[in-house]
Amino acid sequence: MESILVVGSIALDTVKTPAGEVADGLGGSATYFSLAARQFAPVRLVGVVGEDFPREHRELLARRGVDCAGLKTAKGKTFRWSGRYGKDSGAAKTLATHLNVFKDFRPRLDEAHRRSKVVFLANIDPELQSEVLAQMHAPALVACDTMNFWIDSKPEALKELLSKVDVFFVNDEEAKRLSRRPNALQAALTIASWGPSVVVVKKGEHGALMLVDGRFFLFPPFPLPSIKDPTGAGDTFAGGFLGYLASSGDYRSVGSLKRAMAYGTVLASFNVEDFSTRSIETLERERVDERFHDLLERMSVPRAESGRVRRPVAA
Amino acid sequence: MESILVVGSIALDTVKTPAGEVADGLGGSATYFSLAARQFAPVRLVGVVGEDFPREHRELLARRGVDCAGLKTAKGKTFRWSGRYGKDSGAAKTLATHLNVFKDFRPRLDEAHRRSKVVFLANIDPELQSEVLAQMHAPALVACDTMNFWIDSKPEALKELLSKVDVFFVNDEEAKRLSRRPNALQAALTIASWGPSVVVVKKGEHGALMLVDGRFFLFPPFPLPSIKDPTGAGDTFAGGFLGYLASSGDYRSVGSLKRAMAYGTVLASFNVEDFSTRSIETLERERVDERFHDLLERMSVPRAESGRVRRPVAA
Repeated sequence: MESILVVGSIALDTVKTPAGEVADGLGGSATYFSLAARQFAPVRLVGVVGEDFPREHRELLARRGVDCAGLKTAKGKTFRWSGRYGKDSGAAKTLATHLNVFKDFRPRLDEAHRRSKVVFLANIDPELQSEVLAQMHAPALVACDTMNFWIDSKPEALKELLSKVDVFFVNDEEAKRLSRRPNALQAALTIASWGPSVVVVKKGEHGALMLVDGRFFLFPPFPLPSIKDPTGAGDTFAGGFLGYLASSGDYRSVGSLKRAMAYGTVLASFNVEDFSTRSIETLERERVDERFHDLLERMSVPRAESGRVRRPVAA
Repeated sequence: MESILVVGSIALDTVKTPAGEVADGLGGSATYFSLAARQFAPVRLVGVVGEDFPREHRELLARRGVDCAGLKTAKGKTFRWSGRYGKDSGAAKTLATHLNVFKDFRPRLDEAHRRSKVVFLANIDPELQSEVLAQMHAPALVACDTMNFWIDSKPEALKELLSKVDVFFVNDEEAKRLSRRPNALQAALTIASWGPSVVVVKKGEHGALMLVDGRFFLFPPFPLPSIKDPTGAGDTFAGGFLGYLASSGDYRSVGSLKRAMAYGTVLASFNVEDFSTRSIETLERERVDERFHDLLERMSVPRAESGRVRRPVAA
């Protein structure tokens, strides 16, 4: 099975939600992605932390099978983000962003990284994402994410990147902003015209949609009456999605892509049940598959017994 | 197959959306419901219009197989509603409501109406909805809808009604307001505790959810990159849902209820593709079933070929 390369942020997050709060919890896009994708395939992480990065976090990642050879320690402090969520669990209000060592992050891949067949370019400067991609030998599946900051500040670099990726993950608001289209479906169509053969628009509590070859597949979320912390939902979704694809070896069939959507949905649902990476740290594959099959059972609509549906009698 | 009784409003709607506008178009909850449900089963409509109600509207309903024996003409003008939708296609901004003859609507059922086995109490005063129900002989399936106006002005009468219905249709915002719960899932759980064995929460462009015996089933919408007029989406959803159940005769199994959700989704999707009742007036059953099967194909997630998903190699 192919290993997955992920390049992105490792952070210490301070988050407040109606369900509680956590200070300096393990976070960052590459972290969430890795802890989700490791359920399915070996993961190699490339990123940077500061000298203050707790040893137990690095050990935790290694213990969960994440290859941290590409996780560099730089002089200075680890990237910190602080945010607050309201009752509606929608977008976070960012209270503070301290890039610290992440400001000078210039990913350099070693030979093992370059040979990876599946790569996730998590949300960083699109110019850096393109630089990473240029270092790869012959990736079979390239995926990326982004955020409003880059959509506003480097739209052309982002479009240039999109012309070279297979799968683009984006949330609803970002998709509309990037494409200047009024809804997620039109946004996905416009974005697909720039290159990605698969566009995944994440809609939080409303699920996610996938556009493949002009055809839409809409997925409901896994039903959770209450959640604790939405942070990392998008990256765990991407981790479940790409992790499944890497493990199956089938990156193109609609059936495989649909199962990837379902695994993405499932990993994100576990993640939001606790703060930081707590619930996905200890998550076992058995529970992942159990919820995957539960989701599929809920979504499946059995055909009617033959002859059961009759036409109305003419009035 | 059982016929369906619907009691509700017949209106002349003036609607403006980003896609255009219509003045004094055929509308009203009972109208939309009837034109959707008639695809599946005979429909008997009980309502009131004014002397100005165009003859062609009444003829249209009759030609489409809707039994209009219970559609009374009263002295005065027909109920008129005027609203405007913004780009987000969410809730309408009501510009004017003229109840006219609908203000004095006191539904009196004749013997054929009373014997109906399936009844939809569309959005009217919950006290009137209970009065209608009290006139029925032995309905096998009772469903109702409501709106914020009644949730705010007559919450106790509404709860009293809910203790006597099987299926409650409500939109996202109304469900949260009625239950005082922060999200649609918690709202559905609270509302189900008041009586309905099936709670359907309609979420517009985000699909719909169904709660049956404590288990949630979430449905995505049928993907439409653009819509013309969301008016009547909820009532056509209910029409597709109850029409299917009446035609199948299976009001209780989860499989039948899931197919009802899918037919509701399909009928609503056709309805929003044009103004007023235009698209559902001429809609043929063949196109309904075609889109139903298309929706099911999009939602179906095929199981992986055996042995295709492998566990990650220990790092």
